[in-house]
Amino acid sequence: QKSTVKNVAEFNKALRTVQPGDSIVLAKGIWKDSELLFEAEGTAEKPITLTVEEKGKVTLEGESNLRIAGNYLIVKGLVFKNGHTPTNAVISFRKDRDKMANHSRLTECVIDNFNNPERQVQDYWITIYGKNNRIDHNHIVGKKNLGVTMIVGLDTEDSRENNHKIDHNYFGPRPTYGNNGGETLRIGTSHHAMENSNTLVASNYFDRCNGEHEIISNKSCQNTFKYNTFFECTGTLTMRHGNETLVDGNVFIGNGKPSTGGVRVINESQTVINNYHIGLTGYRFRGAFVMMNGVPDSPPNRYVPVIDSKVNNNTFVNCENILFGAGSDEERSQAPRTSEFSRNIIYNDTKKDIFTINDDISGISFKNNILGKNSETTIEKGFVKADIQLVKNEQGFLIPTSKKIKHKISISPNIATKENTGVTWYSKEDKTVALNSGKTIKVKAGINTLYDEVKKSEAGDIMVLEEGGTYLLTKAVKIDHPLSVKTEGKEKANILFERMMAFEIQDGGSLSLENISFDGAKSPDYAGNSVISTSKNSMIENYKLFIDKCEFKDMVVNHSFDVLRVSKGTFADTISIKNSTFRKITGSIAALDTETDDIGAYNVEYVIMKNNIISELQGAALRLYRGGKDESTFGPFLEVDHNVFDKVGFGKKNKYKSAISLYGVQEIDIKNNIFRDSKAIQMHLVVGEPIVKVRNNALSNSEKLVVTGDQKYLVENQWDLDPRFS
Amino acid sequence: QKSTVKNVAEFNKALRTVQPGDSIVLAKGIWKDSELLFEAEGTAEKPITLTVEEKGKVTLEGESNLRIAGNYLIVKGLVFKNGHTPTNAVISFRKDRDKMANHSRLTECVIDNFNNPERQVQDYWITIYGKNNRIDHNHIVGKKNLGVTMIVGLDTEDSRENNHKIDHNYFGPRPTYGNNGGETLRIGTSHHAMENSNTLVASNYFDRCNGEHEIISNKSCQNTFKYNTFFECTGTLTMRHGNETLVDGNVFIGNGKPSTGGVRVINESQTVINNYHIGLTGYRFRGAFVMMNGVPDSPPNRYVPVIDSKVNNNTFVNCENILFGAGSDEERSQAPRTSEFSRNIIYNDTKKDIFTINDDISGISFKNNILGKNSETTIEKGFVKADIQLVKNEQGFLIPTSKKIKHKISISPNIATKENTGVTWYSKEDKTVALNSGKTIKVKAGINTLYDEVKKSEAGDIMVLEEGGTYLLTKAVKIDHPLSVKTEGKEKANILFERMMAFEIQDGGSLSLENISFDGAKSPDYAGNSVISTSKNSMIENYKLFIDKCEFKDMVVNHSFDVLRVSKGTFADTISIKNSTFRKITGSIAALDTETDDIGAYNVEYVIMKNNIISELQGAALRLYRGGKDESTFGPFLEVDHNVFDKVGFGKKNKYKSAISLYGVQEIDIKNNIFRDSKAIQMHLVVGEPIVKVRNNALSNSEKLVVTGDQKYLVENQWDLDPRFS
Ligand SMILES: [Ca+2]
Ligand SMILES: [Ca+2]
Repeated sequence: QKSTVKNVAEFNKALRTVQPGDSIVLAKGIWKDSELLFEAEGTAEKPITLTVEEKGKVTLEGESNLRIAGNYLIVKGLVFKNGHTPTNAVISFRKDRDKMANHSRLTECVIDNFNNPERQVQDYWITIYGKNNRIDHNHIVGKKNLGVTMIVGLDTEDSRENNHKIDHNYFGPRPTYGNNGGETLRIGTSHHAMENSNTLVASNYFDRCNGEHEIISNKSCQNTFKYNTFFECTGTLTMRHGNETLVDGNVFIGNGKPSTGGVRVINESQTVINNYHIGLTGYRFRGAFVMMNGVPDSPPNRYVPVIDSKVNNNTFVNCENILFGAGSDEERSQAPRTSEFSRNIIYNDTKKDIFTINDDISGISFKNNILGKNSETTIEKGFVKADIQLVKNEQGFLIPTSKKIKHKISISPNIATKENTGVTWYSKEDKTVALNSGKTIKVKAGINTLYDEVKKSEAGDIMVLEEGGTYLLTKAVKIDHPLSVKTEGKEKANILFERMMAFEIQDGGSLSLENISFDGAKSPDYAGNSVISTSKNSMIENYKLFIDKCEFKDMVVNHSFDVLRVSKGTFADTISIKNSTFRKITGSIAALDTETDDIGAYNVEYVIMKNNIISELQGAALRLYRGGKDESTFGPFLEVDHNVFDKVGFGKKNKYKSAISLYGVQEIDIKNNIFRDSKAIQMHLVVGEPIVKVRNNALSNSEKLVVTGDQKYLVENQWDLDPRFS
Repeated sequence: QKSTVKNVAEFNKALRTVQPGDSIVLAKGIWKDSELLFEAEGTAEKPITLTVEEKGKVTLEGESNLRIAGNYLIVKGLVFKNGHTPTNAVISFRKDRDKMANHSRLTECVIDNFNNPERQVQDYWITIYGKNNRIDHNHIVGKKNLGVTMIVGLDTEDSRENNHKIDHNYFGPRPTYGNNGGETLRIGTSHHAMENSNTLVASNYFDRCNGEHEIISNKSCQNTFKYNTFFECTGTLTMRHGNETLVDGNVFIGNGKPSTGGVRVINESQTVINNYHIGLTGYRFRGAFVMMNGVPDSPPNRYVPVIDSKVNNNTFVNCENILFGAGSDEERSQAPRTSEFSRNIIYNDTKKDIFTINDDISGISFKNNILGKNSETTIEKGFVKADIQLVKNEQGFLIPTSKKIKHKISISPNIATKENTGVTWYSKEDKTVALNSGKTIKVKAGINTLYDEVKKSEAGDIMVLEEGGTYLLTKAVKIDHPLSVKTEGKEKANILFERMMAFEIQDGGSLSLENISFDGAKSPDYAGNSVISTSKNSMIENYKLFIDKCEFKDMVVNHSFDVLRVSKGTFADTISIKNSTFRKITGSIAALDTETDDIGAYNVEYVIMKNNIISELQGAALRLYRGGKDESTFGPFLEVDHNVFDKVGFGKKNKYKSAISLYGVQEIDIKNNIFRDSKAIQMHLVVGEPIVKVRNNALSNSEKLVVTGDQKYLVENQWDLDPRFS
């Protein structure tokens, strides 16, 4: 019997009389604030189905979710979008801790950007409990708040040795989260790491799942990962806890994107075979292949040493890093033992030695690995060189071929593709609009003309200001989509503003400013103004900010006047400030230090400051902070190149007492700068072996670099010079 | 001619043909997102009027505001509520910097809680420019975001010597803002302090205008304040900048409320006469009367020394503090000179000496002042004692009478009252609902039963839990009105929660928890959980939190698990934690340190911790932070009494490395506590001469008090004891 229901009450009523073999059909339309509990008992022959009147035309929105409990249930065709769950899961395979779903299937469902509006409030999208469930052909895209996208829970006996099958799902883009908790799939937890999960993860497509280090966090025993494709994912399939994992026949495609990685091995009796890797550039924990060091007698939540593991018959094409003994430190002192790395093929066009050996590798036996003829390694045995040619196969993969390669390298026909995963009736197209991709709009000089035009603008539009025109803003310009503002011509337009900010970047916004002059003369006489601020509310979308050839001046009406001020719960992919001048400012250029909870969060991934002149700036020019000891993330990355810092950092209110203040930054490159009459660069180096280079900087009557913390760094050519400015 | 208009377009059309003597009438209804520019030219005989179809039935809501520009204009009867202005003023007496209003009148208008939703985004409600304007009989209540309620601007020549009259306005309650920028009226700025404003402020009623120290900030010359009533206002009428102010015949009623003050004198040739003060308890800068020290050759934004000022014929009944030379320090080293304090009458039932002499008073001549017979002063001359009786006059004021009082103490019939100010057609009643003032609701034990009942509850309701019942929350309970939750009976109900918080206090909410046990065992395995959190978005309303007889335990699933976690842009009037136990917690009890911009903001006014047992708490039990050097605010105030701290503060993630961390707290009273195996109390003392007492605390194997900063403090009886717990 098939009953079509129009609302939650009807659904619950239908459920009361449902029989094996029946279907409950959600009527077309928007199901707002609908929390469904699909609790029923089907049979193997006659499952009970929850489905929709028309695929793609039934959407659960607002505060909605679904719990599945019982046996032999099928859920098919639901779409969750425009909302979030008030609980900790959008779809859960249990009613509560005692009643779960078994022998059930979730198929052809969509969860699309169904995010809690608070970036830092945690939830999962799919939590799988019980046994013998299949999760297949779902389309899952755009998780942006805290929490793993999909988990397999093992917290009760009834969920272990579960034989779940997770297959043919499309895991669409998940952007950098900027803290731990951005994983796409996790199986188990450290608390139950020694339980067998027996979950099969097969033929799923992971499309730019970039939340954090761990694309997949395997935390239990006897799981299998087969025929999955990882497309431009930053991070690795990580065997974080648990043993006897099989990773077989997967494909990792990096396309040269930063931080793309492959497989990371921790724990015992792991098998990594027949995987194909291409164009992975990640280093350290996100290498193309990483075998970690362990902690002797490790507690379950730390690092169990690698033993009895096999890494065989894998192919690495133009990958940049393979690591053995990664993470070796005082605590992680146990190198891998009784393990094997055999018959792997390593080819790289340009980088000679892609191996990093962080500890003793005598516990790993290397056999019959093949290197391209330009490649090298310091590992003494187990590698032979071969004249390798890359030949495209019919699937489009570049396959290394050589007489010396005995086994044929092939990619399974079961490999996941964008086409054979997810559903056909829901688009996988990217919806993001790039800056400068829209129409050009000329904005007349005057009061609020820019405000009015921006309000009418569309994503990607470009506002062109009058050469030398004066623009007064009595309202803050809200940027809620990608937008560019620039002056065409030589004389910059001049923007003054009466509110505490000229521009406020809101959720979904990105901003490019070019060839504009900003003057603080009309800004309110209160502490805490800024030219640009983010929304004070949480922003789910990452934003970008580009400043080029701009001028910022006379921002002295009160103290703590910043150029850019961001809020907690916001995250920028990139903040780039180039070719600009900053004169007479009481605050900072970029105050990126609001995540002071020290739980691993931070405000921005990439910061670039290049070719700027900064003079009479009272605060620290740059404040960049990443607290806590978490190792799940990559950034922040910082480049400070060819800037002049002239009288920077001497304000009484500059609590950092420095010209640049860095804390926990993961990659620092400060070079070719001049500091005159300025405070020091201060950096506190902790966590994650940061890469720190401070080179070719000239200091004149300025304080010297101050470094604290417990990490290594490089300083070269800190000249003591007296620059002459013309 | 009278034209009724229905929308902004019609308004603008009517304006194009308006003639002297005409009226434009806004039609009844809600005017949403209506920004009006009332620019016209009336004449003295035939002004042009902007008014409403029916008073109280025309409301401007959403993003609305009004600018007035031209001559002889009258605005009457508009109500602004349910919204805010996108600009920096709700009502402004100018179109732009060049075109202002003169000879115009704003009367019988209402601005009611028309706040920017962002507490820290600044605006004004009424900005007065031009000359000869009258602002009278307006009702202005509930400003809660940053920025002065009403200002007189002097930034161009055309706004100086303005002869504005501000009279018979009702300034309704403005709660503590928690930073500088909570003034109710400001005339001028430091930049134009030496200009004559010639503004008359007469017969206005200031009802609990408690934003900050300065109820009124006088910042220009030749202003007059007459017949105003200050009812339970915390702070003072402050002559911040400018000379020749006349403060005559005003009434200050404190009713014994904390921090209520009178007049504060700075600068030259000030006259303070015939004012009546009763029941003012404020000290230091908010004394019943304060004459400040100045800075020699003071820059305009600091403190010009007092000279040639007269303080005569004022009456002080049961006021607690009068100060001379207040603020004396290295910078403010110049005591008052050539000034006079004569024929004032000081009566106090209980406090003997209400005078504080902070510096040399030889520059003040004291003559013919009268003290009650129980009163004393160390000032040698100019005081006589009298046997004073308090006699209620027909207006209800207690008037000191004695044969020795020669001049009759009378209160002008023009004195402001709640009745003769504002408008008759808009209620002045308080809308706030107290905790525990509503109905009692029994809540069954179970999953989300509490969530469901709270969702249906009303302000003031009391949720009563089952004795010993277990309550699981899979959704966070949102508290958006005052609400109490308690167990009746001996065995506490037990609350567990699956979200990152059990309760989230949202804008408008307050929470009382009594006799409940909270267990962290079901909370998510992420850093940063809390039992109670505030909204992550800005909260315009101050909130209260009371915790009594509760138990908090097993909050160890991940690090940084706090009991209370607050967000930037939120402010508590009171956080009170009493008679409760805290065991095995990885974070803090109260993390009140999110205002790290150091611009004077902080998170809470009063913090009370009394009779609690705290054991195995990894973080600092209390983190309380008020950064910056601003002197505009009173708090935070802290009392920590009769608590046991047992193994507190030793967590690796405790970045404060202390058991209690205090920064910039203004009043500290820590007494009768036991610290065993615990980290230290750390306090950094800056700004505002904090009152700090640390007395009768027993330390066993615990670190000793650490004090930094530049302020005085008292420590008594720091015992080294070994307590025996039964
Ligand atoms: Ca992680
Ligand atoms: Ca102030």
